[in-house]
Amino acid sequence: MDTTSWRTIQFRVRYGETDQMGVVYHANYLNWFEWGRTELIREAGFSYRQVEERGVLLPVTDASLTYKRPARYDDVVEVRTWIDQFSTVRLVFAYEIHRPEDGTLLVTGQTSHVFTDPNLRPVRLDRQLPELYERLRAEYERGGKRLRAAHLEDRA
Amino acid sequence: MDTTSWRTIQFRVRYGETDQMGVVYHANYLNWFEWGRTELIREAGFSYRQVEERGVLLPVTDASLTYKRPARYDDVVEVRTWIDQFSTVRLVFAYEIHRPEDGTLLVTGQTSHVFTDPNLRPVRLDRQLPELYERLRAEYERGGKRLRAAHLEDRA
Amino acid sequence: MDTTSWRTIQFRVRYGETDQMGVVYHANYLNWFEWGRTELIREAGFSYRQVEERGVLLPVTDASLTYKRPARYDDVVEVRTWIDQFSTVRLVFAYEIHRPEDGTLLVTGQTSHVFTDPNLRPVRLDRQLPELYERLRAEYERGGKRLRAAHLEDRA
Amino acid sequence: MDTTSWRTIQFRVRYGETDQMGVVYHANYLNWFEWGRTELIREAGFSYRQVEERGVLLPVTDASLTYKRPARYDDVVEVRTWIDQFSTVRLVFAYEIHRPEDGTLLVTGQTSHVFTDPNLRPVRLDRQLPELYERLRAEYERGGKRLRAAHLEDRA
Repeated sequence: MDTTSWRTIQFRVRYGETDQMGVVYHANYLNWFEWGRTELIREAGFSYRQVEERGVLLPVTDASLTYKRPARYDDVVEVRTWIDQFSTVRLVFAYEIHRPEDGTLLVTGQTSHVFTDPNLRPVRLDRQLPELYERLRAEYERGGKRLRAAHLEDRA
Repeated sequence: MDTTSWRTIQFRVRYGETDQMGVVYHANYLNWFEWGRTELIREAGFSYRQVEERGVLLPVTDASLTYKRPARYDDVVEVRTWIDQFSTVRLVFAYEIHRPEDGTLLVTGQTSHVFTDPNLRPVRLDRQLPELYERLRAEYERGGKRLRAAHLEDRA
Repeated sequence: MDTTSWRTIQFRVRYGETDQMGVVYHANYLNWFEWGRTELIREAGFSYRQVEERGVLLPVTDASLTYKRPARYDDVVEVRTWIDQFSTVRLVFAYEIHRPEDGTLLVTGQTSHVFTDPNLRPVRLDRQLPELYERLRAEYERGGKRLRAAHLEDRA
Repeated sequence: MDTTSWRTIQFRVRYGETDQMGVVYHANYLNWFEWGRTELIREAGFSYRQVEERGVLLPVTDASLTYKRPARYDDVVEVRTWIDQFSTVRLVFAYEIHRPEDGTLLVTGQTSHVFTDPNLRPVRLDRQLPELYERLRAEYERGGKRLRAAHLEDRA
């Protein structure tokens, strides 16, 4: 599979992200998802700060996480992010968190978002911010759509 | 519906839980779920600290959240928690987060857990800690099971 | 010493507040200080939300913490808060965090604040929000000032 | 001044680190200090994970922060860390947080630490882990000591 189909970030697990179980506290992965999609949007040509400054927010409407293996303090972890579903009013990001050192898949998940104005009222992205709409659509074409097709092939 | 079918906690939203969107940052609700199930376990007769001291952990294997309305700084919020599925090796907690002041349902969700030893290896709860097993099963009977039945009636 | 000289809150330590050292992660106590002063302001007659809605912010300019003993998961902890210094343009809150169960003093500290408008420009509280100024001054008289005097007596 | 006298890390401010004031929530800077000293220790030749695995902990005994300007979402920030005081039983890290884009100094601070065993009992580092002692001493000589001398010259 083309490895450019997702966007990646890497970072180290911080001490404050662990809990007394000796592993990363489970809620923190939801933060990591946010870091992943922030960089995807940036690589698509916008910073999320610019998006908000132009009056568009992407609040989360749904989130799901599957925990397969725990990350530990000081691990280098990699978040892979792609756009799994996309329309003029909403999009779904998908994520995989890996530990590159030993190739372990740690966590998978998704977050769903709607496009809104600063008062959290829904907007159509193609009308509100067409430049971002085009860029995210292109990102979806190169990433999420391709990954979905590959998945379907795998199952065929 | 019998209002004793779930366990409730109430608390105020803290400043540090908000983000610059002016509402609670979405990852924090996953913390609130944890507070809810901690008190459910306590009301069932054990503290989760005691559970861990007896060598049983309940790591999260799956989590899902649906965000309906945002909580805001200083809101009093209520987390309702019940056991939605239960067996000797795993259980599922379900949650609803409400704002009692205006009766708004803010967030719903679930977390799935397995019973493990301190090395995160699966154990059967009825063998490892039968007293807790019995109490959680009773909690499931009075709570989750009843709520499920009520749901099925609603749909009939 | 008159025990009404400070304001208190009590709560349990959450799992996510611990780290892999098995104790509360040190940065979290700064959050607890915030919870303490929020309730002090509320007991003085205002919620901090109301204060912000009337255009006054209290950003932190300095903070200091001394860690004496660690708090642990599920401990009931008590934050005692009082106003240690007070003027028309700034105030200092002081804090003690105790574990009532065994009477252990865990953490002490202070946070300094200035009064500002929403653009973080300094304001005089007695002009901007005289009602709050009077209440905080009264709170300072009954609390911080008395504690200070008691300290001086102790040393005499 | 020799710019190699401190260790630096750079990263972007995350959304979840902001609060509804539109700036970074003040407690988060204490986390950033931790990231700074973690990388200093790593560059000195050890990872803090290795240090803990060899039975030495560095719990925080005191922390202080001075907030000069707020960091904002998506800012690139730089944490400069050096060892300001050093002995066989304790050390003090000093920190400056800058926004390189416009050269603004945002926050300064210090954290004091003692060397302990896993039960949080004090140990002498030169006896418990001499290799780390030597490396931190060298780090202190090249960094903190030099910065202190420079400060004294500035004042002369």
